[in-house]
Formats: sequence, structure tokens, C-alpha cells
Amino acid sequence: MSAAKTYRYYWEDFPVGHRMDFGGMPVTREAVIEFARQFDPQPFHLDDEAARGTLFGRLSASGWHTCAMAMRMMCDAYLLESASLGSPGIDQLRWLKPVFPGDTLHVHYEVIDARPMASKPQVGLVQSRWEVRNQDDEPVLTMEGWGMFRRRPAA
Amino acid sequence: MSAAKTYRYYWEDFPVGHRMDFGGMPVTREAVIEFARQFDPQPFHLDDEAARGTLFGRLSASGWHTCAMAMRMMCDAYLLESASLGSPGIDQLRWLKPVFPGDTLHVHYEVIDARPMASKPQVGLVQSRWEVRNQDDEPVLTMEGWGMFRRRPAA
Repeated sequence: MSAAKTYRYYWEDFPVGHRMDFGGMPVTREAVIEFARQFDPQPFHLDDEAARGTLFGRLSASGWHTCAMAMRMMCDAYLLESASLGSPGIDQLRWLKPVFPGDTLHVHYEVIDARPMASKPQVGLVQSRWEVRNQDDEPVLTMEGWGMFRRRPAA
Repeated sequence: MSAAKTYRYYWEDFPVGHRMDFGGMPVTREAVIEFARQFDPQPFHLDDEAARGTLFGRLSASGWHTCAMAMRMMCDAYLLESASLGSPGIDQLRWLKPVFPGDTLHVHYEVIDARPMASKPQVGLVQSRWEVRNQDDEPVLTMEGWGMFRRRPAA
């Protein structure tokens, strides 16, 4: 990050209790199969017939594909305009319901903790909870994680 | 899953303490950029120049790409030959070090808990820990999670 670069959102813009709803990503059959072919070629992510006898019932997206789609929705909603420095990890990732071709995904986002980083005074930590819901408002994925953001430079 | 289908591995094949090492997946620059373009277009996952001033130092893979590559290595090593029924979730996912184009990833896998599923006698749960290491044997990702497997049918 060059010294000149400025961002819309810094650590200070993610206080505890901050909420956002965003997304509206359509899940296509082609995308489900393409992701599965590359990364998770289990039969129930590739083929309706193979999925029929499983807990999923029909072709469903890889759970990692759902995570990746959530990430894309976060990027478009706020991360690409933020002084994000990456994430150390995720906890309590739960795949609650299958994601099917034809679904449309939204994200409910909430900041659950925020603190300056003791070892790097120009960086702050933000703990967030993301809930991904389908078009029927059913939660399909929840997760919590920490993100690192640069603090807003003095004016 | 059709009644006739048989698998090499069932729940009984993943006892506590069971370990496997597998993988050997090369991380290409093209794959890193393609995944980032689709799912995580933060500048440090797209461009060396943009990554230079960040904590990563140079172009690095999206953390979700590393998860997806780990999933593919699991599929090839055992999941595609197992009576896997999917996973309810993941805990303690940690991105410990950046993954760079040119890296080669391996996985160390260990079963840390296993139990029959009370509500479904033909299904068992397996709790596993995965550690993804690069070619220098440095851990880049660790995670724990539960998987569901069909139990071995009576002979």
C-alpha cells in the first residue's frame, strides 16, 4: 500500500454493533459445477443423479464455494474500498443448509468486537459475524472471524 | 447414494489417531489470479506491485483459495473413495502464512475424534485436523472440522 493511497473505510469505520446487509448473488448451475470440478469433485456437487440419494437431495454447491461467494460479496460491499490488511482466521464456520443452483445469496454482517492492535499501533482488529441467507431468508452459512484494517491517518 | 454403491472407506476407517500425509499441489500464478478475480479481488491477490507495501510483500493466494486447494487434495487422497456425506462446519481455521505462486502444498491429516451419530445409526462423525504446509515445511493453514461418513454395511 503506497503512502499516498487513501481509502473510504478504515478500522474506525467498523465499531462494535456496526451492521450491513448486502449481496444478491445468483448461484448458477454452471458456476457450481465449475467450482466443484476444480476444487471439490464429490459427486453430489457435480451431478443431480448422484446427489439424489444423499443428504443434499439434489446438486448443491461445495461449502467452500459458498465461502468464496460470501467473500466476493464482502469485497464488493466494503472490502475493496477499505484499508484491509487480510485476516488471521475464521471460527465457527457452519454450513447450515445446502446452496442450490437457482438460489440467490445475501449477507448480513455485524461487527462483534474491535480493538487496536497492541503490536502495530497503525493497525486495528475487527471481529465480525457473517450470515449468508438464501432467497427464502434461510441461513445457509454462518461464520466469525478477525480482520485487520489500517487505522485512519491523522488529518 | 444408491443402495448398490460401495466405497473403499467408511466411518470405521477414520479412527482417532489415524494420520495421512498427502498432496503435492503446485500453486500457479495463473490459478492465484483467476481465483482472486472471481472471488477475492483485493489488490494483494491480483498484482505484485499492489502487494509490495502490504503484510504479504508480494502476490499471494486468497485464503479461500488455499482452503479450496486443501479440499481438492482431500478429495484426491481419500474423500472421493469414501462414503462421505458432507460436513457441518469448520473451527479454528487459521491462515498462518501467505501462499505464493510457485509454492507446492501438502496436507498433514489427523483424526482427533470419532463417534457414531445418535440420531442416524447408519452415520458416524469424524473430527479431523488438517495442516497445510508449503515446500519449506512451513504451516500455512490449519483447521479442524467434523465430517459425516456412512458406516460400513454389515457383510
